[in-house]
Amino acid sequence: MSNIPYKIYLEENELPKAWHNVRAAMKEKPEPFIHPATGNPCVKNDLLPVFCEELVEQELNVSDEFIPIPDEIQDFYRIFRPSPLIRAYFLEKILDTPAKIFYKFEGNNTSGSHKLNSAAAQVFYAKKQGLTSLTTETGAGQWGSALSMACAHFGVELTVYMVKVSSEQKPYRKVLMQTYGANVVPSPSDTTDIGKKILSENPGTGGSLGCAISEAIEAAVKTPNCRYVLGSVLNHVLLHQSIVGLETKAAMEKYGVSPDIIIGCAGGGSNLGGLISPFMADKIRGKNNIEFVAVEPSSCPSLTRGKYSLDFGDTGKTTPLIKMYTLGSGFIPSPNHAGGLRYHGMSPIVSKLYHDGYINAKSYNQSEVFDAAAKFAKCEGILPAPESAHAIKGAIDAALKCKESGESKVILFGLTGTGYFDMSAYQGYLEGKMSDYTPSDEDLQKGFDSLPDGS
Amino acid sequence: MSNIPYKIYLEENELPKAWHNVRAAMKEKPEPFIHPATGNPCVKNDLLPVFCEELVEQELNVSDEFIPIPDEIQDFYRIFRPSPLIRAYFLEKILDTPAKIFYKFEGNNTSGSHKLNSAAAQVFYAKKQGLTSLTTETGAGQWGSALSMACAHFGVELTVYMVKVSSEQKPYRKVLMQTYGANVVPSPSDTTDIGKKILSENPGTGGSLGCAISEAIEAAVKTPNCRYVLGSVLNHVLLHQSIVGLETKAAMEKYGVSPDIIIGCAGGGSNLGGLISPFMADKIRGKNNIEFVAVEPSSCPSLTRGKYSLDFGDTGKTTPLIKMYTLGSGFIPSPNHAGGLRYHGMSPIVSKLYHDGYINAKSYNQSEVFDAAAKFAKCEGILPAPESAHAIKGAIDAALKCKESGESKVILFGLTGTGYFDMSAYQGYLEGKMSDYTPSDEDLQKGFDSLPDGS
Repeated sequence: MSNIPYKIYLEENELPKAWHNVRAAMKEKPEPFIHPATGNPCVKNDLLPVFCEELVEQELNVSDEFIPIPDEIQDFYRIFRPSPLIRAYFLEKILDTPAKIFYKFEGNNTSGSHKLNSAAAQVFYAKKQGLTSLTTETGAGQWGSALSMACAHFGVELTVYMVKVSSEQKPYRKVLMQTYGANVVPSPSDTTDIGKKILSENPGTGGSLGCAISEAIEAAVKTPNCRYVLGSVLNHVLLHQSIVGLETKAAMEKYGVSPDIIIGCAGGGSNLGGLISPFMADKIRGKNNIEFVAVEPSSCPSLTRGKYSLDFGDTGKTTPLIKMYTLGSGFIPSPNHAGGLRYHGMSPIVSKLYHDGYINAKSYNQSEVFDAAAKFAKCEGILPAPESAHAIKGAIDAALKCKESGESKVILFGLTGTGYFDMSAYQGYLEGKMSDYTPSDEDLQKGFDSLPDGS
Repeated sequence: MSNIPYKIYLEENELPKAWHNVRAAMKEKPEPFIHPATGNPCVKNDLLPVFCEELVEQELNVSDEFIPIPDEIQDFYRIFRPSPLIRAYFLEKILDTPAKIFYKFEGNNTSGSHKLNSAAAQVFYAKKQGLTSLTTETGAGQWGSALSMACAHFGVELTVYMVKVSSEQKPYRKVLMQTYGANVVPSPSDTTDIGKKILSENPGTGGSLGCAISEAIEAAVKTPNCRYVLGSVLNHVLLHQSIVGLETKAAMEKYGVSPDIIIGCAGGGSNLGGLISPFMADKIRGKNNIEFVAVEPSSCPSLTRGKYSLDFGDTGKTTPLIKMYTLGSGFIPSPNHAGGLRYHGMSPIVSKLYHDGYINAKSYNQSEVFDAAAKFAKCEGILPAPESAHAIKGAIDAALKCKESGESKVILFGLTGTGYFDMSAYQGYLEGKMSDYTPSDEDLQKGFDSLPDGS
């Protein structure tokens, strides 16, 4: 392995021409969405008022393992793909570990993260269907930025409901989206019924992702020729993100390397789900014995302390019921939490794989995550997004374990994005103001009380 | 040319192993630095108290055309190099031009620009010489960020004098440098005699690059085992930046393409000088007929309206005298100017080449530059730094000229960096608050009055 470059870039003719649908390989499929009114599984027509038709088909498709990527999306991908697979030689040296560490870096685009992979696809399908506008929500702003870029490229109007506290903490994220032409509305707002209701019940609220989702869905349903798009959690989003795993697998195979451990941060699960997709299919089929690790913040521990339960995807309880690991749609993470990954639930695919024992999960406090981020920035030169830094912390711990045991395992992690728009969080870290708040069992119970089955 | 990829990445074994020194090819060399006290050319010993020894040798070397890049610097370059040479297919399409547009993108690193190319080299040589600390100045912050990264990597302490108005407008740039461990001091400050003097004369001043340079030099000279490093203008900086031109030339030759026009933004000249270096040597030797274009802001027009004169490099008049195009070290650009490229002078190499007719120059107002930036971001997906957007505007104009004439020229420009830390400038642009102030002849005369020969 001594002749592995620092960075492996695939040639354009080596890039994937189809996405990978891990559900086709799963022995037990994730449970279907349930219509809250009828208790029956959702069918295509239930979802069409909210989502684009082609995305609904992808959402419900559990049988086709490869789904071709349309030429127009492949063209768009060329703006920022392939992303590099980087050998973390400098990190290995500083840790003095026999482990070989690789990371797939998705931050080399203006939106700053992997989110653009799904944004490109979703906007293309919307345009193809003849829609003229889209709505979405954004928290940290990476998804909103990605979607703004894709909408500018394909010529589709966009309204972004941005969690109010984020829009105040990150005014420049808003400017970035506006530069790409998006209409950015701090949420909760008085532009929707749900926003008005939440504002009247909690006048001082800084909002939440679940609440912004409710507003975006309401706006989409009420606007002619408009649909709602979501940047994580859903099956079709994980499908688009499989481009990350496919490129990684191709790049590693090119140099004859196979990962022993794959680590990803997990908020809604799209990054982790996309990165592991083709590797997981092989594992399910007994072709590898990779350890998969999801890393989440201790302050929003949906996998490590959540329940595997039917739940709404949003605070307003307007979505179908989703079987997933969740803290309850009523769970609101601490406003002191700067590290992203604030969603109450988790991708149903990742949830099912975790439930069936294919994925492990662990959680970290904010300060240890930012320690890892600063260490990584200093030696590898990339300032990571706080979200991504969770995976770095996981990789460092795995590498130090190898140091103890003397094993030279191959560790792969996903570096989902850069932290250029998270400097206020880094400022808090440098000033020693980072809170390591972890919810108590009582705090979590309040969220669980909001679960529809009352568990 | 139809099979040219969107992005050309050289393989690691194709990367340059030596920098290119264009002075070796120049028939007439740039004039040497003049010692202000004696009026004689500066020799090595004059410069050693301020600069690292190896950098002084590079600064004075006009005869060796290729200077080997030490292994440790090549290793550091692997963090962020090779940078991609990108075919601007989407921009060509929107402009409907027969021109082929390529850009070399240097923004894919945390410092956000090409500055890291020289920072890596300068810090390595400082470390090799046994120095324990460095000082520098930064305006927009790209240089300070780059140097902070390199100092963190090689383990050298760093104090950055940051132009006060920039440190207030860009607090997050400061946090970024601090995350990499740098000590950031807003300039003018009371930590130096020159800073105190400037503060007493202009209590409310927001500072300037020339003033921050004076402070950094004073601090370096007064601190044991410390030297000063500069991110542009000087010959050794252009030498390090030749990596940009060398990679570009190799990538274009790999696909059988030769540029007809090469366009770069010009502040201190390091980006332009580095990009054109090997192409210019060929032009001087009659091997090509490339048109070279320097683009600068109308508000700080050192090439298009400056004088080719001996001048100090800093406001405090502590540097040697440099023969260059200059607005006078007393020139202070309008505080309304958000577009970077605020330095009063220009690289002596670029100045000499311009004076001898090898380079053309043009200037643009801020609003047309930001128009070009927004157009580019929407179609090519990269949000450019305002500095870089000057080159984009130049390239768009050249491409539109091709459209008129029907010529399918090959246009190459340097995209030096990203605008993630310039969102307040973009905000001003979106809000229509962009000023197109251009200095009057009287304004310029005030700067010329500060020239040492009193012209």
